[in-house]
Amino acid sequence: MTLHVGIDLGGTNLRAAAFDADLGKPHDIHKELVGDARDPASIVERVAIAAERFANSGGASGPATLGVGIAAMLRDRRGMVANSPHLHWRDVDFGGLLAKRLGSRWKLGIYNDVNAITWGESIAGAARGCRDVLAVYVGTGIGGGVISGGQLVEGATNCAGEIGHVKVRWDDTALPCACGGRGCVEAYVGGSYVVKRIAAELPTKGKKSLAISLAGGIEHVTPGHVDRAAEAGDDWALALWTELAPLLGVALGNAVSVLNPERLILGGGLLSRTPTLYALVEVAVTIAVPSASIEPLTIVPAELGDEAGLVGAANLAATGTSVFSA
Amino acid sequence: MTLHVGIDLGGTNLRAAAFDADLGKPHDIHKELVGDARDPASIVERVAIAAERFANSGGASGPATLGVGIAAMLRDRRGMVANSPHLHWRDVDFGGLLAKRLGSRWKLGIYNDVNAITWGESIAGAARGCRDVLAVYVGTGIGGGVISGGQLVEGATNCAGEIGHVKVRWDDTALPCACGGRGCVEAYVGGSYVVKRIAAELPTKGKKSLAISLAGGIEHVTPGHVDRAAEAGDDWALALWTELAPLLGVALGNAVSVLNPERLILGGGLLSRTPTLYALVEVAVTIAVPSASIEPLTIVPAELGDEAGLVGAANLAATGTSVFSA
Repeated sequence: MTLHVGIDLGGTNLRAAAFDADLGKPHDIHKELVGDARDPASIVERVAIAAERFANSGGASGPATLGVGIAAMLRDRRGMVANSPHLHWRDVDFGGLLAKRLGSRWKLGIYNDVNAITWGESIAGAARGCRDVLAVYVGTGIGGGVISGGQLVEGATNCAGEIGHVKVRWDDTALPCACGGRGCVEAYVGGSYVVKRIAAELPTKGKKSLAISLAGGIEHVTPGHVDRAAEAGDDWALALWTELAPLLGVALGNAVSVLNPERLILGGGLLSRTPTLYALVEVAVTIAVPSASIEPLTIVPAELGDEAGLVGAANLAATGTSVFSA
Repeated sequence: MTLHVGIDLGGTNLRAAAFDADLGKPHDIHKELVGDARDPASIVERVAIAAERFANSGGASGPATLGVGIAAMLRDRRGMVANSPHLHWRDVDFGGLLAKRLGSRWKLGIYNDVNAITWGESIAGAARGCRDVLAVYVGTGIGGGVISGGQLVEGATNCAGEIGHVKVRWDDTALPCACGGRGCVEAYVGGSYVVKRIAAELPTKGKKSLAISLAGGIEHVTPGHVDRAAEAGDDWALALWTELAPLLGVALGNAVSVLNPERLILGGGLLSRTPTLYALVEVAVTIAVPSASIEPLTIVPAELGDEAGLVGAANLAATGTSVFSA
């Protein structure tokens, strides 16, 4: 019997789980902090130990598959990491190092974390049974994943889904983005940018905002407070949300026009705490998309939370998507 | 031996060709004008006759496949036409009518014309051997096709690729588009809109433009003359092209960021006659796309011309993409 393992290697946590042959629910979920030792050799060793832990407890030496979702931009389908801001890696052959460390028993697949999450939602979550899916996660940054005709869209070099870096401004006022570009939707609606903008505007434009009393002080205001203020009709909060929602809505809507998905999943730490912004974004998507593509589309929140990446990575590897071995 | 036929049903011409088993070069290409009788029954009859012509000349009654590329927005994978401005059709069950007329001998596939063209270029043209492709055709309007992981991206209801209707403006000044929306890239860079804008601006802003003398009179100016004037440094022509190129460039670049293709094909009647605009669009795409997705990308002009749709439709049907029969 083949052992199937999924690992989610994020900026904060390393999660691992084993799966039965039906690849449904994970069992025996293991979680540890990524911590400070983030050099490639240390991380490879810890990922390998997390995978082998199940191998040893389950049954020792049969065939095994390991899918890893990693918070990184990849350069190929064998785990070459072009860039991972979280791990401070550039041009690291993560796949090659891990395959060598684990040995030929293991078949490996290395995936972008949001692609793995998207696949997980299509297996067991908000897009169960859907063959054409767009999933967009608005947390600190903005990431996306695409499924077309039942297949994960990986792209030529495994970096499809980068919807955070589509341009929504291209005039002289376009804001700089951490990616090095300007006018990316992430530079307007990504969580870290929204938080900075709130902090910058509160003492001036936002000084009379309801968000401040809701938070119990100007230094405690989060996007969640701004959202509740906007819902209550607060001028500043509503102006901010109605500026940002169409930017994200157009970015999503334009991708829908090109891809014609049946399901658009909206998730991530920012959108899950800002229901008013979520509703405004839904409206903006509906306006931006031609009717032939809006009719078959359902917009839903993500369902699986932290498990999505584990389920997705394990399933992609177990079903042979871009797998390799030492 | 199975007979394979491809048909391209456009706004002006109906083209048909038979293919050998290797599905490469078409032979015996037949072409007729679509003409005035555009009601569904008349068109179905003529498409059926064009297909059966090969059946009768080749060998009478064996199995046969027919792929049809049609200038229409589809609603499903069985040839239900939501809307075809060229044929003046709305909600016509073209696939059902054609399958009934042809009988069970024929396996049928009905595709959007630009999707068929894109597939043709990937079989025998500018994207030969590529697994991840975006093709965009700027003619009267703007259409697109996407191939991902070697599969045509059809979308949930077979209307993927509608890049002409991605939004590039969403403020109060956004121009209306024939689709009913506003701010679509087609409403700025689609050929019919460019021609109208040139005609509107020539007597005022463009009255000193070199394009007028190149054309031999203000009433003869085409986008090709504007392109030559822009290349020569003409102020008005250059201002127009440098306004339009980033709009198309951003629309293309944003799709590249989401899809990570290895090949971007640019074709169509407008772009094939405006090399200066083409070059400006190439630059705009390069600026709009993050480096990880621009590195693997090659931008090339379309190669196959009128044959692309025949090759693509015949190949899609012969290889079983969304085929059905009576």
